[in-house]
Amino acid sequence: MSLLPDAGADSGLLSPVRVSTPVEAATSDEAWLQAMLDAESALARTQAELGALPEQAAKIITAAARADLFDVRALARLSRETANPVVGLVAALTRAVAAEDPVAAEYVHRGSTSQDIFDTGAMLVASRALGLVLDDLHRTADALGELARAHRDTPQAGRTLALQAVPTTFGLKAAGWRSLVLDAADRVARVRSAGLPVSLGGAAGTLAGYLQYAELDKGEGEFDAAEYTERLLDGYAAETGLARPDLPWHALRTPLADLGAALAHTAAALGKFAVDVQVLARTEVGEAAEPAPAGRGASSAMPHKRNPVLATLIRSAALQVPVLAAGLTQSLTTEDERSGGTWHAEWLLLRECLRLAGGAAHTAAELAQGLSVSPERMDANLKVTGGQIVSERIAAVLSPRLGKVTAKRLLTHASARAAEQSRPLGAILSEHPDLQGMFDATELSLLLDPAQYTGAAGPLVDRALKRGNRLQ
Amino acid sequence: MSLLPDAGADSGLLSPVRVSTPVEAATSDEAWLQAMLDAESALARTQAELGALPEQAAKIITAAARADLFDVRALARLSRETANPVVGLVAALTRAVAAEDPVAAEYVHRGSTSQDIFDTGAMLVASRALGLVLDDLHRTADALGELARAHRDTPQAGRTLALQAVPTTFGLKAAGWRSLVLDAADRVARVRSAGLPVSLGGAAGTLAGYLQYAELDKGEGEFDAAEYTERLLDGYAAETGLARPDLPWHALRTPLADLGAALAHTAAALGKFAVDVQVLARTEVGEAAEPAPAGRGASSAMPHKRNPVLATLIRSAALQVPVLAAGLTQSLTTEDERSGGTWHAEWLLLRECLRLAGGAAHTAAELAQGLSVSPERMDANLKVTGGQIVSERIAAVLSPRLGKVTAKRLLTHASARAAEQSRPLGAILSEHPDLQGMFDATELSLLLDPAQYTGAAGPLVDRALKRGNRLQ
Amino acid sequence: MSLLPDAGADSGLLSPVRVSTPVEAATSDEAWLQAMLDAESALARTQAELGALPEQAAKIITAAARADLFDVRALARLSRETANPVVGLVAALTRAVAAEDPVAAEYVHRGSTSQDIFDTGAMLVASRALGLVLDDLHRTADALGELARAHRDTPQAGRTLALQAVPTTFGLKAAGWRSLVLDAADRVARVRSAGLPVSLGGAAGTLAGYLQYAELDKGEGEFDAAEYTERLLDGYAAETGLARPDLPWHALRTPLADLGAALAHTAAALGKFAVDVQVLARTEVGEAAEPAPAGRGASSAMPHKRNPVLATLIRSAALQVPVLAAGLTQSLTTEDERSGGTWHAEWLLLRECLRLAGGAAHTAAELAQGLSVSPERMDANLKVTGGQIVSERIAAVLSPRLGKVTAKRLLTHASARAAEQSRPLGAILSEHPDLQGMFDATELSLLLDPAQYTGAAGPLVDRALKRGNRLQ
Amino acid sequence: MSLLPDAGADSGLLSPVRVSTPVEAATSDEAWLQAMLDAESALARTQAELGALPEQAAKIITAAARADLFDVRALARLSRETANPVVGLVAALTRAVAAEDPVAAEYVHRGSTSQDIFDTGAMLVASRALGLVLDDLHRTADALGELARAHRDTPQAGRTLALQAVPTTFGLKAAGWRSLVLDAADRVARVRSAGLPVSLGGAAGTLAGYLQYAELDKGEGEFDAAEYTERLLDGYAAETGLARPDLPWHALRTPLADLGAALAHTAAALGKFAVDVQVLARTEVGEAAEPAPAGRGASSAMPHKRNPVLATLIRSAALQVPVLAAGLTQSLTTEDERSGGTWHAEWLLLRECLRLAGGAAHTAAELAQGLSVSPERMDANLKVTGGQIVSERIAAVLSPRLGKVTAKRLLTHASARAAEQSRPLGAILSEHPDLQGMFDATELSLLLDPAQYTGAAGPLVDRALKRGNRLQ
Repeated sequence: MSLLPDAGADSGLLSPVRVSTPVEAATSDEAWLQAMLDAESALARTQAELGALPEQAAKIITAAARADLFDVRALARLSRETANPVVGLVAALTRAVAAEDPVAAEYVHRGSTSQDIFDTGAMLVASRALGLVLDDLHRTADALGELARAHRDTPQAGRTLALQAVPTTFGLKAAGWRSLVLDAADRVARVRSAGLPVSLGGAAGTLAGYLQYAELDKGEGEFDAAEYTERLLDGYAAETGLARPDLPWHALRTPLADLGAALAHTAAALGKFAVDVQVLARTEVGEAAEPAPAGRGASSAMPHKRNPVLATLIRSAALQVPVLAAGLTQSLTTEDERSGGTWHAEWLLLRECLRLAGGAAHTAAELAQGLSVSPERMDANLKVTGGQIVSERIAAVLSPRLGKVTAKRLLTHASARAAEQSRPLGAILSEHPDLQGMFDATELSLLLDPAQYTGAAGPLVDRALKRGNRLQ
Repeated sequence: MSLLPDAGADSGLLSPVRVSTPVEAATSDEAWLQAMLDAESALARTQAELGALPEQAAKIITAAARADLFDVRALARLSRETANPVVGLVAALTRAVAAEDPVAAEYVHRGSTSQDIFDTGAMLVASRALGLVLDDLHRTADALGELARAHRDTPQAGRTLALQAVPTTFGLKAAGWRSLVLDAADRVARVRSAGLPVSLGGAAGTLAGYLQYAELDKGEGEFDAAEYTERLLDGYAAETGLARPDLPWHALRTPLADLGAALAHTAAALGKFAVDVQVLARTEVGEAAEPAPAGRGASSAMPHKRNPVLATLIRSAALQVPVLAAGLTQSLTTEDERSGGTWHAEWLLLRECLRLAGGAAHTAAELAQGLSVSPERMDANLKVTGGQIVSERIAAVLSPRLGKVTAKRLLTHASARAAEQSRPLGAILSEHPDLQGMFDATELSLLLDPAQYTGAAGPLVDRALKRGNRLQ
Repeated sequence: MSLLPDAGADSGLLSPVRVSTPVEAATSDEAWLQAMLDAESALARTQAELGALPEQAAKIITAAARADLFDVRALARLSRETANPVVGLVAALTRAVAAEDPVAAEYVHRGSTSQDIFDTGAMLVASRALGLVLDDLHRTADALGELARAHRDTPQAGRTLALQAVPTTFGLKAAGWRSLVLDAADRVARVRSAGLPVSLGGAAGTLAGYLQYAELDKGEGEFDAAEYTERLLDGYAAETGLARPDLPWHALRTPLADLGAALAHTAAALGKFAVDVQVLARTEVGEAAEPAPAGRGASSAMPHKRNPVLATLIRSAALQVPVLAAGLTQSLTTEDERSGGTWHAEWLLLRECLRLAGGAAHTAAELAQGLSVSPERMDANLKVTGGQIVSERIAAVLSPRLGKVTAKRLLTHASARAAEQSRPLGAILSEHPDLQGMFDATELSLLLDPAQYTGAAGPLVDRALKRGNRLQ
Repeated sequence: MSLLPDAGADSGLLSPVRVSTPVEAATSDEAWLQAMLDAESALARTQAELGALPEQAAKIITAAARADLFDVRALARLSRETANPVVGLVAALTRAVAAEDPVAAEYVHRGSTSQDIFDTGAMLVASRALGLVLDDLHRTADALGELARAHRDTPQAGRTLALQAVPTTFGLKAAGWRSLVLDAADRVARVRSAGLPVSLGGAAGTLAGYLQYAELDKGEGEFDAAEYTERLLDGYAAETGLARPDLPWHALRTPLADLGAALAHTAAALGKFAVDVQVLARTEVGEAAEPAPAGRGASSAMPHKRNPVLATLIRSAALQVPVLAAGLTQSLTTEDERSGGTWHAEWLLLRECLRLAGGAAHTAAELAQGLSVSPERMDANLKVTGGQIVSERIAAVLSPRLGKVTAKRLLTHASARAAEQSRPLGAILSEHPDLQGMFDATELSLLLDPAQYTGAAGPLVDRALKRGNRLQ
């Protein structure tokens, strides 16, 4: 890349979560340019099929619609004159087509308007990117499913409000992560399968330009505008593989809001996985560690560190996408047939939502596949409270004999004393005057065993794993 | 109201969009309290049905679970001690039940945890509120459908980037508003019908407490934890009318993110209707006006004003909900089995999202039902550019003869000249040397008639109206 | 408060962070109403001072301007008719004054407009609330200063990307918290001292109504509009204690954006304190604990828990205020002389920003004052890596002999081996072939002592504590 | 640019508001890389000055620290391994220095940590970018000052809640825009002059690594850690021209929150200018138009359009920056000595905030300098209500005779009648039975002249223009 005075190219230095992931290339300026060219050529082919444009012109336009023939930066510069990159692109494409065949050049962008091309291009980019996101979500879910299955019965301290609460299993935790990932995949798949429509409205959403040209080109005879409209919309949807909208949506921005919502869900849901891994990776907890190929996680200062970099990258995306997506949702509130500003505010936000969520999904798959888990540390941590982690259970067991309120109060005091004296809860309880004769030592020890108080964790994992992956 | 040192009651003074609308009462502290009590009593009844609790206890608990018997403010004060209002509520409910029957008091909140009750209560509140939102969205869509039908062929200037672009119809504009409202209704209905689950996890999401008590209460014989778990979850869902979750979702916050997304869509989509009405109501445009019963829209200073207050209120909600909802989405990124903070950050945001979106929907129904439209002003405004509004059409018609590029350039210059000289575009064109002999006066006048260039607006309205309301 | 069918009163059930804190009452509807009445009466007194209104009328208006004489809920209901609560309030105040003296009633709201009264009232509320916020920030900073001083030299593991990195001191951590709190206090104090102006513009910001009445009331003689404008603005500022704006700011919303920025900073900065406390309070870390009076932090399920509820409450505010404040900043982008919607969107957001940030500050003071710290656990945790926490130091010490790169590589391998074998880093190093003869055992043991590698932590604390509190 | 499989370069296609503006290059990856290299070389020079590093090494490091010698994309790719680009950069820089002088290579990044280099680099980028932003804000303010001066007395309809309210002047409107721009410039200048500190903390904010190496390098004799710390921090600040922080701020993110707040204010304040221009440019209003060099504002469909593209671009930035900045503010809530994720989430957000706000400022200068204004259309629009625009004035004039309430009611009815009958308000009033004999025709006509009811608009402009530009 040459460094022209106005160079502002961004090649990912500030956004490692997406560098070199598939979604990065799929959302690059180059990819966006190609998608807009695809929108132009698909339009020409659709019009040709309806007889509103010579077959030959459609062919030449299609052949010319290759991003590598255009200068992205020059188009970006031109976009300042017209507030969007399509006006300049149409001129450049027209020139390219004219060089081949001046007659065909007459048919470039026939009856169309900038927003039809930009939005159709954006939906193509989104469709391709969401496909990649889905792949990575599925890979993540598969790997988490493996973890859940393998650790269905591995006891682990359940933690609430930062403290050890009652036991759970690592399998249930992993099943929960998987469940969120599948929730995200459902939302992404729903948007991808039906929420990404072609844009076809012409200057103000009436298709008047398309109809005017079609009528002219049809020559003699009846022209049924309603029928042509239906065929044009259906044909364009078929040609691009996008959805067929009910109405031109220049100013009806549900697709953008839906994309924002699905991508914010995706990134933030993966963020849950990431922050949990960070907790488990803490030096003092040590229950899980990231995969560590050579060089991964190195610190510039500290030789001993293996930083949880994958979780860090995922979390960085989780923090950004929801606020970016809020901007996309706000684009719904847009005035007139097309807005001066709210539309233009969507583009960068959409690209970054796609990239960050997609980068996070790709990173999450790597993290899930390589996560190493330490049942030994889980077991050791379950013991650090000396039995207090099952205080709920003891209170329950005592409540039929002492009453609920008294039982809970007794355990509250016993736990406090155990903590103060750094003694096991069992020792406090076995010498408690009110409990004499209630348990024998074996019974008490069993009741105090964290591994015996994981409730329905196992069956919950079984049920959660029945939820299918890859079948939306 | 006296100004007690801790008085902080909010009765709507700062949020007129929701005052006295049905959703306001449905989301009040009182309503939330009742919903939490409903969650407690439904839990008791479910446990009783499974034999884990005496029928009589469930009855007494249900009878005591009436919000009017509790002091909301006192519970709010207590919530500072435990970071949530449930601990205090359980104590108060236990006291109330004990006053009736000390044995029954043993069964209050049996095996449960604060978050189960709070979240189930929140879902009940959401379900009730979303029902009201849906009603108002349907009423709005109906009224907008009427407008679209009535004005299917009323020509109006299409406006893009603030300028008159090409003609459209008011019917198409109204159909677009309706389309967004139905999009919102679809999203709200989807969340309401399947996205609002009961919360039932116990202290750390394993249901261990519920199972421990059930096993104790069962007495002798086998206790099948997996089966009991299934029956408990199914039964609680049936008892409350909420959805049955796959997993306890204390830290899997898809329901909150989904609520945020649907409500942000709703408010922002209604905002589109509002800002369009504001444009049309502008003194210089004058194409639409709000319903104006006596006193409505009065200014404290200016006697002549009839402010478009309904659009103003709706827009005020549209501006707030997307940022509030971003906070809800961020709640997905929550650590551990239950978080200290992200859960607690959801409550106010959820209430305000429900209230603001619901208030906006109620207000939108009133606006849609009473909107008055002026075809005369639309017609007059279509004429203010002296034909430039159809310059696209003339360029299209000329392009077969002059070539696309030349035709567009000719029209660009002719339009500029017309604007400079404040003359009709037709006059400029009819004297243009390059166009001599191409059109006769009648032809040209027909081509320049805005009402003849509304493209497929009519058929698009027809198609849009086929999209059903009230049938999600 | 009676529970009318449309009651939507909110008494704090969903927002424990602010319940019963001083800022809650200072931002209640009642307080807002009083502030608007204060704005009306101050206006009358100012006009009287300038001879534009009879002294007696100003007195009667002032006497009538008591919130307890008005029905907040009724005013809220009326606000739906006019999109703001001032039109109804002016009518009610006029009636109240007329009951006393019909002539004085002529002078209520003289020349004024709703937004002047609402915005001046809002600035009065903000000023009062920010004063309370400042008090609590100062109390917090004082307590944190005590902690920093007391623990200037208490070694603690420094943690980065979730892992133990190199040692630090608890004093430096506390000094950092204090530094952020003082940053917040500076920003709040700056807004409070100069950023809260009276609003005085009349219907469209020209003061025409004020001038028209003043001219009429002056009777004969010259009327210097420029001079009167200056005196009116200066006088109103003096009467209210608010700042004197350069221009009417109905549509120039810097004060709101500034409030949003300062309050978002405050809440999010306190959030740093909160999330650090949560990490330190983790069962496996155990280096700090919240103050625990009886009942505080109780769980509804688990007898042994003492939840860190204060940190939880603070964090709940930290998560909400930045997104709410984004909405306030967006209010800058507002059209015309006064907007239909962006102004109205500010009110609730402002109140909640004030309340949540203020509630967080109050809670933080309590947390800082009562935080208990365990140097023993800090010491124990410093030892869990067996010396790896000072690997950076050993690499530095070796680099003159081995070269930087080789030294770091050696330590990386040695640390990995120590971790694998669960042996102290010192043992690995002392038997390492490349290091034979470099250190004796005492030297090595000193180098490996975490307490000897806290860098400039002590002097940094000293310097940080020189930054004054309470002197902005 | 070659299309490597992983190419994701962004050259501005989706963000026209900043393409080719000075801030774009100043915030490019290349610029960021250079700034990080500047941070490394300034550190070496500072350490050399303190005797902790050979002069010659500092020189060689400085010579090698040229961005054009490094491969940005390769560094971006490496950043995925370590979650930041500095680890790879240090390795590459070390190699480059070693090629020149292996001894000097030992001194690269001496005692430092990634975040010190990244954050110092980010502050250098911010400082340079804010300088450009300030230049453009000043140019904008100058041009708006010209407009305000030139149109001090040009009457224009004041508009509130979308409707004509009372007259104002265009000068007052322009003075208001200028006032907001100066507010933004004040906030940007404040951050730039004192809010951008060097980052110097070492691995966990204690500077231990810096001190360790300095002590080693000092050789024999006393080493005063406190004194060295002070000199190092002061020296580094002097060498870079950045501010001197009180404490290492790895996890005390006030600078980022301040940048976010100032840039959000800037973009949103410029957005006010933009949306006002859009209203004035509306076809039906026509009071202002954007500068229109050839090709500017062209539509891809409509020959007659001259789209207000500058306002559109500015508004697109205004809509994005506040939500991005919310993410920056949230970065304050960050755990530990350095966070795994919140820091990493800042980078992209900061760059886009700088670029979008800077692009908007550059665009605003062009818009302000070229805005064309039509006093004729302003005059014509003032007449469209037939005098209703001064109904407030008539009510005021009548109130001494009829009483305030009666006078307002009379004008309300008269205005309604005038509107219904499409007659001038003067005609209705002159035939009104209650007003007979009160005014003669000349008096009434004078009272109804909008140009005579602009209040203090002129003096307010005078005062506002006294606020200096370029002198913060």
